[in-house]
Amino acid sequence: MERSKIDEFLKVMESTEKGGNERVKQIVNRIVKDLFYAIDDFNVTPDEFWTAINYLTEAGQNQEWGLIAPGLGFEHFLDMRLDEEEEKLGIKGGTPRTIEGPLYVAGAPEEYGFARLDDGTELDEAEIVFMQGQVKDENGNPVANARVEVWHANLKGNYSYFDSSQSDFNLRRSIITDENGRYQFRSIMPSGYSVPPKGSTEILLDALGRHGHRPAHIHFFISAEGFRKLTTQINIEGDPYLWDDFAFASREGLVPAVTKITDEKLIAGKELDQPYSSIDFDFSIQREHQTGPKAIVERKRAELVESKRAAM
Amino acid sequence: MERSKIDEFLKVMESTEKGGNERVKQIVNRIVKDLFYAIDDFNVTPDEFWTAINYLTEAGQNQEWGLIAPGLGFEHFLDMRLDEEEEKLGIKGGTPRTIEGPLYVAGAPEEYGFARLDDGTELDEAEIVFMQGQVKDENGNPVANARVEVWHANLKGNYSYFDSSQSDFNLRRSIITDENGRYQFRSIMPSGYSVPPKGSTEILLDALGRHGHRPAHIHFFISAEGFRKLTTQINIEGDPYLWDDFAFASREGLVPAVTKITDEKLIAGKELDQPYSSIDFDFSIQREHQTGPKAIVERKRAELVESKRAAM
Repeated sequence: MERSKIDEFLKVMESTEKGGNERVKQIVNRIVKDLFYAIDDFNVTPDEFWTAINYLTEAGQNQEWGLIAPGLGFEHFLDMRLDEEEEKLGIKGGTPRTIEGPLYVAGAPEEYGFARLDDGTELDEAEIVFMQGQVKDENGNPVANARVEVWHANLKGNYSYFDSSQSDFNLRRSIITDENGRYQFRSIMPSGYSVPPKGSTEILLDALGRHGHRPAHIHFFISAEGFRKLTTQINIEGDPYLWDDFAFASREGLVPAVTKITDEKLIAGKELDQPYSSIDFDFSIQREHQTGPKAIVERKRAELVESKRAAM
Repeated sequence: MERSKIDEFLKVMESTEKGGNERVKQIVNRIVKDLFYAIDDFNVTPDEFWTAINYLTEAGQNQEWGLIAPGLGFEHFLDMRLDEEEEKLGIKGGTPRTIEGPLYVAGAPEEYGFARLDDGTELDEAEIVFMQGQVKDENGNPVANARVEVWHANLKGNYSYFDSSQSDFNLRRSIITDENGRYQFRSIMPSGYSVPPKGSTEILLDALGRHGHRPAHIHFFISAEGFRKLTTQINIEGDPYLWDDFAFASREGLVPAVTKITDEKLIAGKELDQPYSSIDFDFSIQREHQTGPKAIVERKRAELVESKRAAM
């Protein structure tokens, strides 16, 4: 179809817009125009169009948009844009950010300095891991009372809350750093995550000839008064998907060494009777910046509230 | 951000595609690229992006994509494309097509020649309408045994099935034309339709400064062996939204005259005791065409099956 004929109809539609939100109008009209052109360029048939509409519906009903967005690279792209914007303002260095993903749950128990994350249910098969380090400012000085929010998957690659077979807040804690900016936690070594079988994300990835796996990883929010919030993850080295993450979230600087501790004294010091893994990782965070892009991202997040927990 | 930097990441993503469906890959990659460019051009913030993702989710959960698609002009645009494609093949004339909308329900009772559509519940307030005419081929010859599927809203602008307060198949029938290609039905004059208050479609239209009203209308599928299926509607003349349909479906040739019948003999002939409205409308359908675009559109449609009806 002639572009001019398409543009004419787009103009008719836009002429019906009276008032409204200028920014929404600009962005929606751009997206609609792009989609009209794509439909025309690819000769998208009505059957194909309604298949897509059905897909949109099902993905909403499955609650999978939070997975499709990283799977199609959008969440990493937003990170690329924030990185570039910060760099232009001279906000450089520090621990790299990477995607949040859709599986954070607000309200996890708060502990000071140290927390154990796992509820012990998978101990028979699990590898025990200790992770520790400091939260530091850009000059390497420790940041006391920083909040280290940590969450990760269990051995099946599932997350508590979304996997109702797990206990509340299993593998989720909020750790406040001590006077030396130190945090430490004990947990089980997570497995990699895969998108839900036969879900909307997997259906799309299959059609694209892609897989839906993530390497084993641990999520973090690091926040402290006067500092920019850091959203990041570490990956577990050696994972076959380490540099083949379906969500494109692996980054240099976020793959710390994992040390197998076999020394009996160290094992005994942890009150264990078997070797464990140890990960040292310091987080370096940026001071708040007047003109920097918003570091606190607002998105709809799950929350498990005290009243609900108390009732359980 | 430099386009080249965006393109580089797009290439990284596309390099992970091995196998899959060539057409889905082409179309999805195009749409993703267009969206990346739009995000960058408008400096879409993470907060805005996640607001949009949340909107996609809610619209799926509300089952409103079938309304958003016509509201943003997609359904009419598909009609424009089919019209053009047919015209190029010499498939011209006949009753214009217009959008199906999302409210068809399969399985309506079948009647021969004549049907009464309404169940009588709104008769106190309603205007009674008779609509009649012929289904004809391109030479004006009647088509016997054509199927006239008809559905429309009640006085509140609601459709049976989707509005569970109405009886099964209220204002829905499938009428088989008689040996002269004639159909006739008695019903109540429908009111205009409006998108669900506070639903996803209305939220979007509000932001665009647009309304979500349709003029009063009656939907039709016309099908007959050897002919292309026709999907169309007629609008009721005089409706304030007649040429201001939020779904852009009003078309010349689809607004028949409505005649008020006050003649007492005619009224008595219909076994009524009050004036009624009468609409004459002939449908002209096209012969099946070997290379024409598919006239039967496949999309997910509601269906009320006999077993369910029998159990009610």
